[in-house]
Amino acid sequence: MADINSKLEIGVTTGPIRGSRKIHVGPLNVAMREIQLEPSSGEPPVRVYDTSGPYTDPAATIDIAAGLPELRRDWIRARGDVEEVTQREVRPEDNGQLGPDRSGGVPPFPRVRQKVLRAKPGMNVSQMHYARKGIITPEMEYVATRENLGREMLREYIRDGQDFGAAIPDFVTPEFVRDEVARGRAIIPNNINHPESEPMAIGRNFLVKINANIGNSAVASDVASEVDKMVWSIRWGADTVMDLSTGRNIHDTREWILRNSPVPIGTVPIYQALEKVGGIAEELTWEIFRDTLIEQAEQGVDYFTIHAGVRLPYIPMTAKRVTGIVSRGGSIMAKWCLAHHKESFLYERFDEITEIMKAYDIAYSLGDGLRPGSIADANDEAQFAELYTLGELTKRAWEQDVQVMIEGPGHVPMHKIKENMDKQLQACGEAPFYTLGPLVTDIAPGYDHITSGIGAAMIGWYGTAMLCYVTPKEHLGLPDRDDVKVGVVTYKLAAHAADLAKGHPAAKVRDDALSKARFEFRWRDQFNLSLDPDTAEQYHDQTLPAEGAKTAHFCSMCGPKFCSMKITQEVRDFAAKQNQPVETFVAADEAEAGMQEMAAKYNEGGRELYIGAGGREHD
Amino acid sequence: MADINSKLEIGVTTGPIRGSRKIHVGPLNVAMREIQLEPSSGEPPVRVYDTSGPYTDPAATIDIAAGLPELRRDWIRARGDVEEVTQREVRPEDNGQLGPDRSGGVPPFPRVRQKVLRAKPGMNVSQMHYARKGIITPEMEYVATRENLGREMLREYIRDGQDFGAAIPDFVTPEFVRDEVARGRAIIPNNINHPESEPMAIGRNFLVKINANIGNSAVASDVASEVDKMVWSIRWGADTVMDLSTGRNIHDTREWILRNSPVPIGTVPIYQALEKVGGIAEELTWEIFRDTLIEQAEQGVDYFTIHAGVRLPYIPMTAKRVTGIVSRGGSIMAKWCLAHHKESFLYERFDEITEIMKAYDIAYSLGDGLRPGSIADANDEAQFAELYTLGELTKRAWEQDVQVMIEGPGHVPMHKIKENMDKQLQACGEAPFYTLGPLVTDIAPGYDHITSGIGAAMIGWYGTAMLCYVTPKEHLGLPDRDDVKVGVVTYKLAAHAADLAKGHPAAKVRDDALSKARFEFRWRDQFNLSLDPDTAEQYHDQTLPAEGAKTAHFCSMCGPKFCSMKITQEVRDFAAKQNQPVETFVAADEAEAGMQEMAAKYNEGGRELYIGAGGREHD
Repeated sequence: MADINSKLEIGVTTGPIRGSRKIHVGPLNVAMREIQLEPSSGEPPVRVYDTSGPYTDPAATIDIAAGLPELRRDWIRARGDVEEVTQREVRPEDNGQLGPDRSGGVPPFPRVRQKVLRAKPGMNVSQMHYARKGIITPEMEYVATRENLGREMLREYIRDGQDFGAAIPDFVTPEFVRDEVARGRAIIPNNINHPESEPMAIGRNFLVKINANIGNSAVASDVASEVDKMVWSIRWGADTVMDLSTGRNIHDTREWILRNSPVPIGTVPIYQALEKVGGIAEELTWEIFRDTLIEQAEQGVDYFTIHAGVRLPYIPMTAKRVTGIVSRGGSIMAKWCLAHHKESFLYERFDEITEIMKAYDIAYSLGDGLRPGSIADANDEAQFAELYTLGELTKRAWEQDVQVMIEGPGHVPMHKIKENMDKQLQACGEAPFYTLGPLVTDIAPGYDHITSGIGAAMIGWYGTAMLCYVTPKEHLGLPDRDDVKVGVVTYKLAAHAADLAKGHPAAKVRDDALSKARFEFRWRDQFNLSLDPDTAEQYHDQTLPAEGAKTAHFCSMCGPKFCSMKITQEVRDFAAKQNQPVETFVAADEAEAGMQEMAAKYNEGGRELYIGAGGREHD
Repeated sequence: MADINSKLEIGVTTGPIRGSRKIHVGPLNVAMREIQLEPSSGEPPVRVYDTSGPYTDPAATIDIAAGLPELRRDWIRARGDVEEVTQREVRPEDNGQLGPDRSGGVPPFPRVRQKVLRAKPGMNVSQMHYARKGIITPEMEYVATRENLGREMLREYIRDGQDFGAAIPDFVTPEFVRDEVARGRAIIPNNINHPESEPMAIGRNFLVKINANIGNSAVASDVASEVDKMVWSIRWGADTVMDLSTGRNIHDTREWILRNSPVPIGTVPIYQALEKVGGIAEELTWEIFRDTLIEQAEQGVDYFTIHAGVRLPYIPMTAKRVTGIVSRGGSIMAKWCLAHHKESFLYERFDEITEIMKAYDIAYSLGDGLRPGSIADANDEAQFAELYTLGELTKRAWEQDVQVMIEGPGHVPMHKIKENMDKQLQACGEAPFYTLGPLVTDIAPGYDHITSGIGAAMIGWYGTAMLCYVTPKEHLGLPDRDDVKVGVVTYKLAAHAADLAKGHPAAKVRDDALSKARFEFRWRDQFNLSLDPDTAEQYHDQTLPAEGAKTAHFCSMCGPKFCSMKITQEVRDFAAKQNQPVETFVAADEAEAGMQEMAAKYNEGGRELYIGAGGREHD
């Protein structure tokens, strides 16, 4: 087994995304990515939202064993409402070391903080609390700048979209962010013990966000691969990352991830609590769960999935389902409730949990433990019974000014998706919705990033604020690095499609820039503007690998002799030259001559003129 | 260069799809695929629609050089309205052999028919013509049986869907098929010179269909790869195939494809006509185009894309677009119109084209030459001007009882998709819509099977009858075999999601069977019921390769110690055993013991219990 104490063993991908550079905007140095276009284009660079953190900044020094700089350290302390306390001591069971076999341990993060932060007694450090007091925090300012990228280019922009009652502003001000957080329509998940995070908002009046799930295996070397997956997923656009580790080494793995993550980290604390009782759900207690919350709160987890809506009376509703309870957290609690024939302690102790959340500014992600696991079970009684309970709990959390988002399904056919959004908005007072897909059919294992990407794009359009990715390995196995990337890019495109359809003013800029580049045969710009420049270029090069083909005014689909885009360009050029209605054009002799010349030149290169057709959209 | 005269050089994939067997149903021996389930399941086999032809039938002898058996030969002749005529002689220009370079020729298909069929003078052999005369043809009967698969299992089925005004019957009768074809709401594309085809219907009251595009390159060996791609695409579910070949050898390549295709073949005849005039659009004439139609009609092409809606006055409407005219056929005609400053000969000669169509029963696929090539251009004036002209042409074709479908976009953001469907239904009198995606964002080259799969699922739900696939190489290069498969499977899942959402009575059977298999840990059944059993099993085996893991009651996502699906099963088992309300259950001691035993057994095998988490949906 590799010695992962060696820094070199934890390798992560660094360096700029192809064709882009990191920029920092405004007094808070908000990180963005700028895609440079060919000078010939006469177009300004395109600014895009950047989740990748310092890893894509050539000026940054990356040291996984040291962790990231603490961007928010001073903001948090300046508010004067936190105190340093000694961190709860790490126990063997925190890492699942219960039995005699303690092999495969993950080494502790070298720079574990001895002192952690907590709200002073009686204080509430949640962003919602500040927002409701009328305070605009640096976190809110950061979010406002971050969400606005490129928005100033859009003076001419005519709003075009259907937003189903959302209230997306033309320009995001810090006051708008504060107001959205105060109303509970958006959350900024950032635990005071995760000062490395770059503030971001989840809410339906902001850009649609995506989450990537990772999680450790028990073998030691995997802490490296989980940190690598985290960095890899944010490189391609994951806005938050959930650490769904199970088994041993949960505590140490999470520490490595948190200290190196510039995005909010979510967890499902019941997973670790279950490990502490040897995997036997009935042996879970409120005390063990509470202790786990404190443990994770002190480490800096930004949001907790809490399945407090799985109430005892709802469990029998699942017995007649095709796929029963598919949520892991949901079934743990169902088993506990049945074993003890008692109401869930998560539900009964909810206000006590909220007390903990507000002392660290952890956001709730109220888990949908009874979500449907198949098309057959979508939108059933159990699912909506739980949803209404989540709505009740949302209001209880808000009474203590604690931020909340609501988890949603799952597996839902297209015609039943909107009902989920409508009911969620109504039941949960517009708290952000955070859905897993939904998958719109069950019959495509191996392609569930796509079956779920369809549902994700649609529910994002209807108003879901964050989309939890699904990888091609869903239902089948554990995603590797490639699967993580495919999952992230698929969800990024789904989220973007949702932003476009909602009429988000910042969204269409990138589509238009890419389409213009495509039309003008600026191949490099087309690659660089895409969500995945590496794959785009690689696919192009499989057919036309020569460097010259990237500046050529034709592509492999039609070849140089006939090109529909080129003909359109001729239509336009002649319109411009002749200064007369295009209807009166005569034959485009000149352009034709130019085309033939180009074709001849190409022929001299010995290349085949006519490259076949299949799969192109130009019919 | 390989000698492709050798039969061995044209290799295609044959043999049953994993876990399935070919069956033939009813007096017409309608081919279907039956997925066998594990005997332990107590479930009947699941019948699915089968596009793969004899290639998946172990009883069939496949000889590419001989072509497929002529299933419809006797049906066509029995109607007494056709005559044999000598086939138009093949000319060098049919294969693009204009210049001195005649290398790379594709060998002619060995068994080219000398005599071909044509309607007797004054006769009309279109299915629409028969339908309107009240005749139920064997083709219509075949379609009815084919569409009904499994429908008899659904006596208990409660219709659940939103069909936007479609009229999907509980059970498809031959009379229903006849009526749909008579009304123009469905087409059965099957040229009398393509008797090898298995009849299928395209219409919004039938299962949503998908098309795969293939097309030759000029190098000789590629005829083998195009035939292989055709067979490969229908193996995974392509309902029709378009041969979009350009360049040389178009005629011979098409012959190889047609003689070996059990699905309807579509083409864009203007491509070949353009080759015949050396690629110079202005030199196209009605006579050359007409001759090309006859040439292809005699070979057996089942539907022609004709861009007759690209009218002279609409062309200037594209000048202000971001991406002008992206349709190849559209821009050929635009260039011709501008060069001659004349109305399109396709529009002016439309009724003469229709005369040809009805003599062979070729269906129109009225091309959307002015479709948007970017989000920016969606639903614009040019696009809808053309659509309304296509509606006018539909009615003109129907006056001669010729079958019509209408091609649609392209690139459309989600909120503008429904308008396309609504306008098409209204303008074109419910003629079947056949769309390319649409892509819901421009920013994901390399992933455009997904950006378009989202739009395809949605527009399929709204009422589109056939979805033209897009592969991952779209906009970038030529699809290879793997790309074809990914494109087909993606579109198959989109079409199926649409069927589900429309409430098609036959659709949900497969989802439910797969979900039940998943829930009961019947891994083999889960793989076999999926759209791509090979990939599903391969992904599973990457994490748990042992054969035992395929019968184990757990998966790699949670491991054997804790499994949410297993717990639900316990809830149910106890409900059954105790014969009392599930609310009163006591701890599931017995099941727990069983679980621990299984876990212990697994441990003995030396395998790691806890396999990590990332990417699973069980949170």
